[in-house]
Amino acid sequence: ISEGEILDARPYALPPRSRENKVLPEDFKTPDKHVERDPRLIRLTGVHPFNVEAPLSDLFDEGFLTTKDLHYVRNHGPVPLVDDNEVLDWRFTIEGMVEKPVEMALRDLLEDYEQLTYPVTLVCAGNRRKEQNVVRKSKGFSWGPAGVSTALWTGVALGDLLARAVPKRGAKYVCFEGADKLPNGYYGTSIKLSWAMDPERGVLVAHKMNGEVLHPDHGKPLRIVIPGQIGGRSVKWLKRIIVTSRPSDNWYHIYDNRVLPTMVTPEASANLPDTWKDERYAIYDLNTNSAICYPAHDETVSLTNGPEMYKLRGYAYGGGGRRVGRLEVTLDQGKSWTLASITYPEDDYRLAAENEILYGGRLDISWRDSTFCWCFWDLDIPTTSLLEAKDVMVRAMDDSMNLQPKDMYWSVLGMMNNPWYRVVIHREGDTLRFEHPTQPGNIPGGWMERVKNEGGNLTNGFWGEKFAGEEEVAEPEP
Amino acid sequence: ISEGEILDARPYALPPRSRENKVLPEDFKTPDKHVERDPRLIRLTGVHPFNVEAPLSDLFDEGFLTTKDLHYVRNHGPVPLVDDNEVLDWRFTIEGMVEKPVEMALRDLLEDYEQLTYPVTLVCAGNRRKEQNVVRKSKGFSWGPAGVSTALWTGVALGDLLARAVPKRGAKYVCFEGADKLPNGYYGTSIKLSWAMDPERGVLVAHKMNGEVLHPDHGKPLRIVIPGQIGGRSVKWLKRIIVTSRPSDNWYHIYDNRVLPTMVTPEASANLPDTWKDERYAIYDLNTNSAICYPAHDETVSLTNGPEMYKLRGYAYGGGGRRVGRLEVTLDQGKSWTLASITYPEDDYRLAAENEILYGGRLDISWRDSTFCWCFWDLDIPTTSLLEAKDVMVRAMDDSMNLQPKDMYWSVLGMMNNPWYRVVIHREGDTLRFEHPTQPGNIPGGWMERVKNEGGNLTNGFWGEKFAGEEEVAEPEP
Repeated sequence: ISEGEILDARPYALPPRSRENKVLPEDFKTPDKHVERDPRLIRLTGVHPFNVEAPLSDLFDEGFLTTKDLHYVRNHGPVPLVDDNEVLDWRFTIEGMVEKPVEMALRDLLEDYEQLTYPVTLVCAGNRRKEQNVVRKSKGFSWGPAGVSTALWTGVALGDLLARAVPKRGAKYVCFEGADKLPNGYYGTSIKLSWAMDPERGVLVAHKMNGEVLHPDHGKPLRIVIPGQIGGRSVKWLKRIIVTSRPSDNWYHIYDNRVLPTMVTPEASANLPDTWKDERYAIYDLNTNSAICYPAHDETVSLTNGPEMYKLRGYAYGGGGRRVGRLEVTLDQGKSWTLASITYPEDDYRLAAENEILYGGRLDISWRDSTFCWCFWDLDIPTTSLLEAKDVMVRAMDDSMNLQPKDMYWSVLGMMNNPWYRVVIHREGDTLRFEHPTQPGNIPGGWMERVKNEGGNLTNGFWGEKFAGEEEVAEPEP
Repeated sequence: ISEGEILDARPYALPPRSRENKVLPEDFKTPDKHVERDPRLIRLTGVHPFNVEAPLSDLFDEGFLTTKDLHYVRNHGPVPLVDDNEVLDWRFTIEGMVEKPVEMALRDLLEDYEQLTYPVTLVCAGNRRKEQNVVRKSKGFSWGPAGVSTALWTGVALGDLLARAVPKRGAKYVCFEGADKLPNGYYGTSIKLSWAMDPERGVLVAHKMNGEVLHPDHGKPLRIVIPGQIGGRSVKWLKRIIVTSRPSDNWYHIYDNRVLPTMVTPEASANLPDTWKDERYAIYDLNTNSAICYPAHDETVSLTNGPEMYKLRGYAYGGGGRRVGRLEVTLDQGKSWTLASITYPEDDYRLAAENEILYGGRLDISWRDSTFCWCFWDLDIPTTSLLEAKDVMVRAMDDSMNLQPKDMYWSVLGMMNNPWYRVVIHREGDTLRFEHPTQPGNIPGGWMERVKNEGGNLTNGFWGEKFAGEEEVAEPEP
């Protein structure tokens, strides 16, 4: 029996093979000149720092697990340089309100603690922010809908580490600090201690991604991975774990990853320190979200020699371990909805044999009720129905009955954007052409820019179309 | 120092004094002829079974804690008769997939386990269902917005009981069964075992409400209380706790307390057993919700000799232990929003002294991160602004950034209704009159019925008004 046959018997997928990348010429003159990257990634903040998403179709085509090559990256500054031979000696601390503060090396983490492996979807809080920026410029750069990726992470339960350090009475938060030195100090943030200690939440101190030492862009050699929460809490290049009675006072904890109330403008926000510091506006759990991946932007379907049925496909995810329980599709702007099929590849990992080891970690998911990963939906639609529709929209609802809203909740950082994902359908001769809301970064295209340029008001409740409401009223003759 | 002064020193409120009620004449000829009730309660399903909510203003005026008199009640059938002298002998079981099944009396629960007390808001999944019924009749009766109440509950952590019974490997659910015999068997349902075992979720086996033996309508002598979840899971008159590998197969678990996909009609639902059994559609966590309590329905404000400012007031709640982080008010149908103030009386209980005992239970909330109770919002508005507005609407967002939607998600059981709460403002001479969406049960009134009767389509995205969208278009001359 060959290794290949053993692998084939697994009830779950392993990651697609990743590529051998090189340092790209555009990085030669940046501090990241040591980092090998995939040229397909779309840079959203110029050459440096490195903030990227994959083209949506490329991401979707990789399937449930994303390679390091196409996994989105959110870097605030230069990537710390850690040579392979330094990895095991990487030192970090557990300090603050603990009975037994400790400084240890990654080697100790590997030797002294149980290793776990499971799939986790990470999502940037800015996923789909470009849509907000078209409505009104936010204080954030323009993610498309590919700021979401899934990998098999291997590491130690944060709760195990904290239990040995013994949090003191009154401890309520766990702060994380990375090695990335930035204009406002090292990147840092915090979560609640109760979440860190809860096995259902699955917070990891991770040192492998898809079975390999972490790629430098993903935190080499050590990072936090928090399932169900925004990526901004999963601190990379981890140096310090600090138990506290108060949330982190790190600049990046206060002034990033928040959804301020919608009436706070970029101008007003400059003078509202108490609003920024209000923990109620800090984002932790992801919210319910979904996108249409196929038809892709600018994809065309022939009406004369194309297929009779078209398979709509996309992704969806919930927050805080909640599962997307339904995905609904409308072809008549919300008047009626059709239920799509949903697959949950994450559940395949729950079928693994007891105590199965993957990448040196126990595949620790069968007992868990939480959902940590994205799911995929599809729906077969007659091409004639697409021909008759102006657009196709989708919305997900999680199993706590949180539904994606019709309308955007604009906020000053442009985060957590999750209105119905709308793809406009254009008939051009014998062809249908599909138009997504936006294209990532500075790439032009999408119905939102087009409608705005045509003078439409994107916030009129009907995507900037001139008339709205169920009964369309004939315009008065001129 | 008198007892009164000791009470005054508490940082938290105690419940309002409850009334001495009598058996009401309308109950004389029902199986509930032994149950004393408050005549203010509005009966939503005729005389029997007893399903009631308080008038919204009465409920709100009681404040954070609700007396047994005004606490909403959802009874599926006759109330079991339990005499006071039988309370301690009430027997119940812990059985199923446990190493040590047990049958015990309430007396044992009191003697052998730690007692806890804390405030919990219970909400019927049908709260605000009348609004759905006006749009399209659902398979459920017409709750107004007062299907929500808060009390101090005393009992034992369900996790403590289960830990002693020792769940077996493979156990995933905990079923509850009550003593209320119904057409389809005893009422029963289930939750996940992981929730039952999680102290943050605070699931109680409760025997006191506001310091008194449970009122018959609230489960005398023993019930489950599950914070953050719909009331339908908090089984009353508790007889059996059954640990299982599968969700409950009780008729009421399958065919009640679900949000089926919106396209499932009452007619179609009769032939969709697999849809009913799909656990993804079962409701557990509450969703984010809020209502305007003042101005009340049909309240009037004088424009000539009234106050210059009006204080809008209401309640809000989140689900699954999540906190409502913001409450926003609009006077221009969602074009702009103002932030209301929010108070969280629940937090006062976190300030209690360590190990403080209330009603025989440790006031067990200071360490907890979860939010189990409703909160109150208010906003001062110039009366002239109300004069200029067509309506006032509110929406809450929880701290997982789940936002109340603009539009209703209609479903066949009409549950979890949570669109923006809208109060219409009418100018009548020198007076403003306010109109809520509905009135509970068969009570007529509210803008929804009025608009529907006038031929408006309530689902046109603009509350049935004829024109919609930002730019209103002049109607063609006739």
